[in-house]
Order: sequence, then C-alpha cells, then structure tokens
Amino acid sequence: MPRKPTPERLTFFSDGVFAVLITVLVLELRPPAVPTYAALLDLWPRWLSYAVSYVFIAIVWANHHYLMRFAREATGRLLWFNFAHLFAMSLLPFSTAWMAVSKLAPQPVAFYAGVFFLVNATYIGLIWELVGHTHAARRTLRLRSLLTLGLFAVAALVALKFPLAGLGICVCCLIVYLRPEP
Amino acid sequence: MPRKPTPERLTFFSDGVFAVLITVLVLELRPPAVPTYAALLDLWPRWLSYAVSYVFIAIVWANHHYLMRFAREATGRLLWFNFAHLFAMSLLPFSTAWMAVSKLAPQPVAFYAGVFFLVNATYIGLIWELVGHTHAARRTLRLRSLLTLGLFAVAALVALKFPLAGLGICVCCLIVYLRPEP
Amino acid sequence: MPRKPTPERLTFFSDGVFAVLITVLVLELRPPAVPTYAALLDLWPRWLSYAVSYVFIAIVWANHHYLMRFAREATGRLLWFNFAHLFAMSLLPFSTAWMAVSKLAPQPVAFYAGVFFLVNATYIGLIWELVGHTHAARRTLRLRSLLTLGLFAVAALVALKFPLAGLGICVCCLIVYLRPEP
Amino acid sequence: MPRKPTPERLTFFSDGVFAVLITVLVLELRPPAVPTYAALLDLWPRWLSYAVSYVFIAIVWANHHYLMRFAREATGRLLWFNFAHLFAMSLLPFSTAWMAVSKLAPQPVAFYAGVFFLVNATYIGLIWELVGHTHAARRTLRLRSLLTLGLFAVAALVALKFPLAGLGICVCCLIVYLRPEP
Repeated sequence: MPRKPTPERLTFFSDGVFAVLITVLVLELRPPAVPTYAALLDLWPRWLSYAVSYVFIAIVWANHHYLMRFAREATGRLLWFNFAHLFAMSLLPFSTAWMAVSKLAPQPVAFYAGVFFLVNATYIGLIWELVGHTHAARRTLRLRSLLTLGLFAVAALVALKFPLAGLGICVCCLIVYLRPEP
Repeated sequence: MPRKPTPERLTFFSDGVFAVLITVLVLELRPPAVPTYAALLDLWPRWLSYAVSYVFIAIVWANHHYLMRFAREATGRLLWFNFAHLFAMSLLPFSTAWMAVSKLAPQPVAFYAGVFFLVNATYIGLIWELVGHTHAARRTLRLRSLLTLGLFAVAALVALKFPLAGLGICVCCLIVYLRPEP
Repeated sequence: MPRKPTPERLTFFSDGVFAVLITVLVLELRPPAVPTYAALLDLWPRWLSYAVSYVFIAIVWANHHYLMRFAREATGRLLWFNFAHLFAMSLLPFSTAWMAVSKLAPQPVAFYAGVFFLVNATYIGLIWELVGHTHAARRTLRLRSLLTLGLFAVAALVALKFPLAGLGICVCCLIVYLRPEP
Repeated sequence: MPRKPTPERLTFFSDGVFAVLITVLVLELRPPAVPTYAALLDLWPRWLSYAVSYVFIAIVWANHHYLMRFAREATGRLLWFNFAHLFAMSLLPFSTAWMAVSKLAPQPVAFYAGVFFLVNATYIGLIWELVGHTHAARRTLRLRSLLTLGLFAVAALVALKFPLAGLGICVCCLIVYLRPEP
C-alpha cells in the first residue's frame, strides 16, 4: 500500500521552483562592458525590472506559503492547480527580460502585466481548492484576489499606451499582498 | 552505526532536479529582438515546445510522486533506477531546444519522442522495483506503461516523416498519465 | 484552520536560493578557447573572484544556518527580513562577474564590497528579529556585525583607489565569521 | 536558546547543490545548428563528457548520501569539510565543458582527472570526520578511497600524454564506488 499523499513534497517542489526562478532572474543582469557606475546606471530598465520581479516572486511565495498551510492532502486537483500557478510564474523571467531589453516598450510591459494576471488567476484556483467554505478568511481572500485580477487586466490595457503607468498599477496591486493574511 | 537509508533524501534530490529542469526550460525562451506581439508569435515553435515540455515534466513529476509513496527504503537498486529516470528527464531541455530551434524538423522531433520513450522505459524500472507483486495496481500500471512505451516508439518513427503527427501521438500518450493512479 | 507557520519552509526556500546562487557562480567560469594551462591561468581574475564568492556564500550560509536555529515561527517580519537578506545575496553573481570581467577595476570592486555591506546590514536585521533580548550571544553578535559593517564600508571606499586592498579588507572581515557562534 | 544543529539542513543544502550541478551540465549540451543525427553524432565529445560527468555526480551523491547517514550533529568542522567537497564538485561543469570544447585535448582531460582527485580528497576528509574509530567500515572505506586517490593522480599524469587512457582510468575508478557500502 502506498503512503498517503502529504502536501509536503508538493511544497518542497514548489519551493525549488520558486528558488530557481528568483535566481534565474539574476542571470539576466549582465555586467556592463565598461567598469564604471555610469555604465551601470545606464542599465536602469534592467535594474527596475529585476527589482520589481524579485519583490513579485517574494510576495507570491509568501502568499503560496500562507495558502499551503491550509493543505491537508496532495489531491490530484491541488497538484494541477499548483502546476498551473507555477507555470504562470515560470513566464516571469522571460517577460522580465523582454521588458528590460525593450527598455519598457508598450507591448512587453502589457505582456508583463498579463503574466501578473495569470498568476493571480491561478492563485484564485488555489484559494478555491484549499480554503474551505466554512473558513472565515475565504470571503476576504477571494474578494481581494478578484479585485487585483481586474486591476491587472486594466494595467495590461493601460500599458499599451502608457507603459510606466501600467507598471505602476501592477506595483500598487502588490502592496495589498504584502501581508498574506487578509 | 549509520542511520537507515530512508527514501526521503532520494525524494528531495529528485524534486530538486525536477524543479531545476522545469525552470531551465524557461531559459530557452529568449525574448524577441523586436518589442511586438507579432515577433512573439513568430516564435511559436518555441512556445509550443515549451508548453509540451512543461506539461510533460509536470506529469512525470506527478507520477514519480505517486510511485515514491510505495518506497520504504532507499536501496541501491532504487537509487540507480531513479538516476536512470532522472538522466532520461535531463535530456528534455536539450531535445526541446533542438526541436524548437529547428522549427519542428523531422529528426529533432523523432529524437524528442525518443526521450519520451526513454523516460517511459526507466519509469517501468521504477514500477518493477517499487510496486510489490501482491499489489493490485501493479498489473494495470505495467500494462499502461508498456502500451505507451510502444506508442512512443511509433511516434519516433512517424515523426521522421510527419513531425507534427509524431508530436501529436506523444501528447495523446500523456493524457492517460494525467491521473497517476491507474 | 491553517497550520502554524513553521520556519521550516522558510529555511528550505533559503537553502534552495543559496544552492542555486553558489552553482550559478560556476556558470561564469567559461572554459578558455585554447586547451592549455597557460590560457587557464590567464583567467586568474575570474578564478580569484569565484573562490572569494564561493567562500563568501559558504560563510553566509553557515551564519544563516546558525541564526535560523533561533527561529520559532515564520512571522511576516522574519519573512521580509529574510527576503532582504537573500536579495542582497542575489546581487553577488552579477557583481562577481562584473569584477572578474573588468579584471578587478576600481568601481566594480567597490560595488562588490557594497554588496558585502548590504548582506551584512540585512544580517543585522535578522539578528535583531531572531535573537531575543535575554540571550547572552545577542550583544556579541551585534558588536561583531556592526564592526564588520563599518569595515565593508571602508573597503568600498578604499577599493575606489586601491581595488586589491579593498578586496583584501573584505576577505579579512570574512575570517571572523568562519565560526558563526561568537 | 537556539535549537541543536541537526545535519538535516546540511543535507538539504548539499542536495540542492548536487541537483543544480547535475542539471547545469545539461546547459552545455547545445543543440546542433543542423537538424540531422549526423550533426548530433558530430558532437560526440560533448555527449561522452556529459555522460561521464552525470554518472560521476550520481556516484558522488550516492556516496555522500551513504556517509551522511553517519552524521549526528552539524558541527563546524563537518560544515567546512562538506563545503570543500561541494567546492570540488562545483568545478565539474567547468572542467566538463573545457574537455568537451577542446575535443578531449590532453591538458583539459588532465584537469578533469584533477577535479576527480580533489573530490576524492575531500571525501576522505568527510570519512575522517563522520565514521567513528570504532566503526568496522572505517578501515575499508579509507583504504578504498586512498587507493582511488592515487589512481586519479596517475590518471591526471597519463592524460597529459594519452587523454583517452587517462579518462579510462577515471571511469574504472568510479566502478568501485557504485556500491557506497564497502
């Protein structure tokens, strides 16, 4: 008889993916050819993209960590919701690099906001799966995530015209997730 | 006296390898030079390859996770069957990249199907090692995996003439593994 | 009801980041084009940078490992102090590469010392959070870390004129951390 | 009061490093420019190097896994012996790449054998630290590792004249480690 499917291994696997993702981002930070701070500052779109993405992954991890504390068993559905969530996250290094290389051009920034949207949408799936109907936090958790889901969609549209404004909306949405507990 | 060789460390190591593999795939997704969605869509063979490979790793992980729940002890044979399985998996980023770069040319797609074949073959080794003769699931698990093993071989041959058809067979085989329990 | 937030997952995530960081450094070690030891020795700034950075990460990990043994619960504040610490660490591969590529030019070495400063500063935050007022080690831990914080600042300034001397000060500061327990 | 320093976190960190190392090797396997098997076979020095390195890491991990089962506490000395061991291992991707790129030229292959020597030497340190004087396995473990240490040194010298012969000696030495228990 197999052992029961505990959520532990699911958590460790997810942690591994988060840890690699947050470090893979760094690989995009290529040293400038010239050894001066002027050359370093010239790369500001990369720095800004890196910082925003780092904070984003940190926040998503903290919220994932919070949500997984509700898990009792690694059911098949939880597994696939989690994979969908990690897939959305895995698009982050690519979209960060595209945004940085293009020096915050409209379409890459909109794509970046789209990744935030996808991560948020799959997070709602995890809430649905993990937080029971009877739990007091469920309502607040869902309200908050539906609200930011809408805002990320708006950010994607705005970014097509005003990239920096779209990026700004994304950053603002992150603030409400600094504390995972609603 | 050394402690008993629990399967825990084996599992964590495997999780680490899976986590890095699934993220290393992302590194192949290079941002297009031009910041437009047209340029992004132009990279469709990369996107398709990435998506198929991601789902493939997710499915293999889920099945590995299921099988490891049968493990009681990290025997030497289990260790080496597991390393063979991970080796087959480790060829995936390379073959994905080759398939993507060649825009789904016949030989790279056949090679890709060959990797699926190898992963399946080593998975049969793990079933052999882990699921006892008396266990009811053994027969079904083996039947399923022998069937898909044959289909992956067919896919590799078909791909030499019709790459997309070969890739299609591979994707179809994955469906029966969405639920690890037979 | 969610489970209690144990510091375990925090520790595993941090370990993952440290493990990837220490290995990502290796990727900077590109093989020389010519297969001779002369060509290998020619890359000495890379080797020196790699060795210093490896030892640095090892020391930071050992101290992080020591400090985390004080943790009882993964509070929100601990989470964010830890993320700040890991962020400072994540700048290491980039700054190592820049220093190595520039063959130890003044400004990159000063930047490198600045990363050490940042890692030290966030480490003080972790001490503050984790080691209780009543604990005997707290005073010594803080004294040591404030002292090295000052020395790293000096090293950054010195490096702008004498890069090798600045790097030397950094290396000297590391010695007092070889044993995490004060 | 801090908790006791269990060897668990040391083990997980090491597993992370091993997992990343084994996967980072794959990144060296670049797809050939032409989508044919002829082009793939043309890369045979890379394939051979990759296969040998993969098996090498697998064997080192299995032996590390065996030895760590003797650990009772993560002492400072164990920590540093382990870091030295991991450092030796971390040179593997670099030396594998150099050997592969140079198509098995004498000096890179000798360097590769030198890395095996270093890994073996640090492994002796771990045996010294972990396996108590009273343990029956200690004598056999040390004899075996001193023997292979000598053979790796011979392999490095031989490789300077006959690279393939040197590589052959290395592969032969690995065979006695296939079963970690002596």
